[in-house]
Amino acid sequence: MPDDLTLSHPLDAALRLEALGEGRFRGRTSPAYWNMAGPFGGITGALMLKAVLDHPQRRGRPVALTVNFCGAVAEGEFQIAVSLMRDGKSTQHWNVEMRQEGRGVATTASAVTGAERETWVHQAATPPVVPRPEALARMDLTGRTGWLHQYEMRYATGEPRWTPRTVPEVRSGLSQMWVRDVPNRPLDYPALAALSDSFIIRLLVVRGDLPPVATATLTTYFLANPAGLERQGAGYLLGVADTKAFQHGFHDQSAELWSEDGELLAVSHQVVWFKQ
Amino acid sequence: MPDDLTLSHPLDAALRLEALGEGRFRGRTSPAYWNMAGPFGGITGALMLKAVLDHPQRRGRPVALTVNFCGAVAEGEFQIAVSLMRDGKSTQHWNVEMRQEGRGVATTASAVTGAERETWVHQAATPPVVPRPEALARMDLTGRTGWLHQYEMRYATGEPRWTPRTVPEVRSGLSQMWVRDVPNRPLDYPALAALSDSFIIRLLVVRGDLPPVATATLTTYFLANPAGLERQGAGYLLGVADTKAFQHGFHDQSAELWSEDGELLAVSHQVVWFKQ
Repeated sequence: MPDDLTLSHPLDAALRLEALGEGRFRGRTSPAYWNMAGPFGGITGALMLKAVLDHPQRRGRPVALTVNFCGAVAEGEFQIAVSLMRDGKSTQHWNVEMRQEGRGVATTASAVTGAERETWVHQAATPPVVPRPEALARMDLTGRTGWLHQYEMRYATGEPRWTPRTVPEVRSGLSQMWVRDVPNRPLDYPALAALSDSFIIRLLVVRGDLPPVATATLTTYFLANPAGLERQGAGYLLGVADTKAFQHGFHDQSAELWSEDGELLAVSHQVVWFKQ
Repeated sequence: MPDDLTLSHPLDAALRLEALGEGRFRGRTSPAYWNMAGPFGGITGALMLKAVLDHPQRRGRPVALTVNFCGAVAEGEFQIAVSLMRDGKSTQHWNVEMRQEGRGVATTASAVTGAERETWVHQAATPPVVPRPEALARMDLTGRTGWLHQYEMRYATGEPRWTPRTVPEVRSGLSQMWVRDVPNRPLDYPALAALSDSFIIRLLVVRGDLPPVATATLTTYFLANPAGLERQGAGYLLGVADTKAFQHGFHDQSAELWSEDGELLAVSHQVVWFKQ
């Protein structure tokens, strides 16, 4: 008999959490979303959000998620503890901690969930004008392992060049790409949380080489409501990422995730530690 | 004899914390930084950061601060508890909670502090070109109370119009302003944390009216090192703020804070709840 893990999407397998009661959950790291020295940060963020969504007291939909990557996550089992810090009429505030046996706190997070309500709507920003995904080449991942294979990425501009630079050169940090899960999967909030970290570290895009780096903290604001995610379905998202400054061992990075029909689904921001 | 509170800057008076040991601190809300229904969010953020900086185990300088405004802060005493979640070589991760007697958790925060290290420097973004502060009118605060009076603001563009709109109109959410503490005060990280929330809620700028609103969560990345803050001293900061989308009861808002000589000192992002 096939293991039921083999029947589900790799994302759903990676996000499987066993409820232990009192806001505690148990899960396992996923080989499919492995990065160089630990899990892909996006999958860790999605797990922190999934635990909030699975909490019996949770009302409303995700509005904001901040994930602090405190230390390395080792391959294997982890526990996630979710605490409702404040239960308000319009918003709930959550704290989340991921621990591993004998290793202390690996990841902390805070999340805001918000009551569904219709209000004034005004989208001030507009998506960039880029060719349709079908007109763009899929990023070549030959020889690349890990989480990158869980996404289909089609760059309109700013595709990272993976070869170590020989001539020093500083490039723009702007990337615009179509992106979706592999295989296609209807969008939900955990998937959107993971996608918000699917933008290659800007240091690589700008400088061409990649010294030791690690995201220190990642914040995602979910601007779409559940109906907006349903409209998007399993389509391509249009991602835009850029950076403003690299100095004193850290750089910032911001991203937008647009629906295929031009709705801003989420924005995200992170600060990245780099060694040199 | 004058109370020593009267001898210090209002910001330093507002940020005064009494150490109670084991990472706990006691303070009082400041009338000078009062907002409509509670303290100015920036002063609350600055207090959460100040408590981290005052923690005996803290090494390095602030890199990131996320402040979650969970519930109303009442006038009077509060306690702040700081926990070192993970102590790494390059970064320390902190959790912070502000409580008031009999009222539960008012505010949570997470912070990252980072070791000082010189690395590659590249400022990809550039400050906007605006007239010098002396050439711009100071924002008229006649009839306005509270925290706004603790800042000198000189708008180059996007000054909020405080009159309720009669003709429906949607304006740009972009503001560019020179801003500094009143009275002038040498910049430090808590002051920068407060300044990162000194941008009027974009809903007012865009729509002209102001229904009930509240920042749900605010994240600031400190890109400057202590030497950068020292270079800035008590000069004007150039602030830029904008927004991308208003929908389903929330809107995003982002800001940049530039030094007087064009260094990007901090970026900040927030999501704002609004009623209608």
